Amino acid sequence: MTVSRTAALSDGIIAIAATLLVLEIRHPDPSSDHLWRALWHEWPAYLAYVISFLTIGILLVNHHVLYDAMTSIDRSILFLNLVLMMLIAFIPFPTGFLAEAFRERDGESVATILYGATMFSIALVFTLTWRYLKSHRSLLIDPDSVDRRLRRSFFGPVAYAAATAIAIVAPLLAVGLFAALALYFVLPGRHALAGNPVEP
Amino acid sequence: MTVSRTAALSDGIIAIAATLLVLEIRHPDPSSDHLWRALWHEWPAYLAYVISFLTIGILLVNHHVLYDAMTSIDRSILFLNLVLMMLIAFIPFPTGFLAEAFRERDGESVATILYGATMFSIALVFTLTWRYLKSHRSLLIDPDSVDRRLRRSFFGPVAYAAATAIAIVAPLLAVGLFAALALYFVLPGRHALAGNPVEP
Amino acid sequence: MTVSRTAALSDGIIAIAATLLVLEIRHPDPSSDHLWRALWHEWPAYLAYVISFLTIGILLVNHHVLYDAMTSIDRSILFLNLVLMMLIAFIPFPTGFLAEAFRERDGESVATILYGATMFSIALVFTLTWRYLKSHRSLLIDPDSVDRRLRRSFFGPVAYAAATAIAIVAPLLAVGLFAALALYFVLPGRHALAGNPVEP
Amino acid sequence: MTVSRTAALSDGIIAIAATLLVLEIRHPDPSSDHLWRALWHEWPAYLAYVISFLTIGILLVNHHVLYDAMTSIDRSILFLNLVLMMLIAFIPFPTGFLAEAFRERDGESVATILYGATMFSIALVFTLTWRYLKSHRSLLIDPDSVDRRLRRSFFGPVAYAAATAIAIVAPLLAVGLFAALALYFVLPGRHALAGNPVEP
Repeated sequence: MTVSRTAALSDGIIAIAATLLVLEIRHPDPSSDHLWRALWHEWPAYLAYVISFLTIGILLVNHHVLYDAMTSIDRSILFLNLVLMMLIAFIPFPTGFLAEAFRERDGESVATILYGATMFSIALVFTLTWRYLKSHRSLLIDPDSVDRRLRRSFFGPVAYAAATAIAIVAPLLAVGLFAALALYFVLPGRHALAGNPVEP
Repeated sequence: MTVSRTAALSDGIIAIAATLLVLEIRHPDPSSDHLWRALWHEWPAYLAYVISFLTIGILLVNHHVLYDAMTSIDRSILFLNLVLMMLIAFIPFPTGFLAEAFRERDGESVATILYGATMFSIALVFTLTWRYLKSHRSLLIDPDSVDRRLRRSFFGPVAYAAATAIAIVAPLLAVGLFAALALYFVLPGRHALAGNPVEP
Repeated sequence: MTVSRTAALSDGIIAIAATLLVLEIRHPDPSSDHLWRALWHEWPAYLAYVISFLTIGILLVNHHVLYDAMTSIDRSILFLNLVLMMLIAFIPFPTGFLAEAFRERDGESVATILYGATMFSIALVFTLTWRYLKSHRSLLIDPDSVDRRLRRSFFGPVAYAAATAIAIVAPLLAVGLFAALALYFVLPGRHALAGNPVEP
Repeated sequence: MTVSRTAALSDGIIAIAATLLVLEIRHPDPSSDHLWRALWHEWPAYLAYVISFLTIGILLVNHHVLYDAMTSIDRSILFLNLVLMMLIAFIPFPTGFLAEAFRERDGESVATILYGATMFSIALVFTLTWRYLKSHRSLLIDPDSVDRRLRRSFFGPVAYAAATAIAIVAPLLAVGLFAALALYFVLPGRHALAGNPVEP
């Protein structure tokens, strides 16, 4: 498994996970009396779709940044990557659950915590990978940058842990934070896309 | 993120979105008394499948034309591409809803407007991308062509806006227009495939 | 759109269509009294999965043979390829319907005709593509081979037309023929895989 | 079909199969009285997801090891690969069935046997491929290694046959063995990832 092959495969899995998100959105019954209202009633599904799609886009760029930094990979990196892919491919589940909880106006807190915990875990695996690379500098093209990158990578887990904690009392605010995090990194500007939860 | 990597990833997402369309088609119950009629009753699903698949094919070619024109990409282009992919990956939802509305003979107008609005948004992002490239000519292989390409790119949003407006009063006619737009660009002829909603 | 790019994208669509086939198989209820029998009761789903997966594998090889023969592609080839992809991506639908009809022991004939008609259409597009290449020999690496290849390509549509006709009176026999066609081309031997419905 | 093209296509199919696993996980109803408990009630789905995802990751590495060993492929290898892909793409079915059986606390033995039989079949095709390569050494880069590799490849089918036999009387223990097999090969250590069911 070379760096480029692993990166290409991971690209594929991330792209498929993003594309499967649409399957979590339900159609309203077209014979509803108030069809526009019924369509609007599904707003949590659209919002969850947008947040998850943008976040997966950021994760994809983060993953490229990570793999572009490496000259070669070892078994531990492959293992960390497999866990990362397992978590990213899982995203459609908390996304669909989040949408349904806000649609049903029930269980929003639980669903938001689950969503945040998934994103926290993903961000944590990025940090763990940079931590591992810090003690295995021979895998890196530019070993001097690893301290800075590791330090920056703490932003992701910390931000998602905070949003998840907020979800316990104010789930809608936490969803707003997930959206804000996605937009902050994705919008073209100083931090956009090249910066990311890993490198704000 | 290089041009070729972004193009390859986008190819993947577009291909997956097209292949997921089939999941929106429902089987009739095979124990129906009039099974051929029951199969035929699903005609909106087949029609929606064909229109969306052909349109996605055109979008794919448009995307190639766009990315073949660029020497490099910046964060704004990446952001526009992420929004474009988010919209294209969304296509199975309005496609399935369109099919169900025409099958149920209820809500056809709403479903057709939603479908048209999705296609309009996609065409608009293409135009916005060409507009951005017009003011960032250094990203282009042939900067002199950008005015012509931008001008042509207006055809897509205008055509889909018109079809969407027609959907308010005559949804079936609007669906016919979606089909005609797809066939016009896809059929081998003067405009086919190389020409497209972006470059008629 | 170069030959290699179109071939790679088509590979992707064909691979996704094959992988989506599994979603058409239903689990029996695990609390059934006779769970092995309930699992066995789903045999049409397994059989349909195997036949469609092997057939898609053959189509993939056929597609490679076709595109390996070309030096370049034009708009007509692109159009024919888009129709081909649309039909191949449709395969999960007749596959799932075939499985359900045989499980319900009702509508087998209709479902088998639909399945056969899909396969016939796919084979026909291969033949049409070779026919087009015969009159556009400049697209071919070895123009002298086109007559032989076109002649051989008639086998596919003829075989599937025959099986589909048989499905009117004997659907199970037709399914056996679909299986036999798949196995004939897929089993390692004189004709296997390199030979195919297009080149028996 | 070259070695690299077949390997790339197989990568794609394996990646899609892994990403489809998430569709087998059901959301609990967000209006459940005890939503955390309802989420926890789905533990078999999470466990099955993790085991299947890790196992597919190992299969992917095994597949790379296998194809990296070959200089060229013939029709028999292509046939064996098609069967292998058909079985790997099937994994979401026994995974979903396993999860449902343990959730319903009914039919666990049958579901576990089906899961184990699928994994056994996959491991067996790897062994059959090495067996075939032993008698077709000209396909190999390093023919001298084939005896050692074939010998090692027996571990997979034997381990899965044993776990499947255990599933008859103790399905939960068998699931533990599936998890242990996945972790043993996936965890970074002496055997991890480069070693695998085929090469422990």
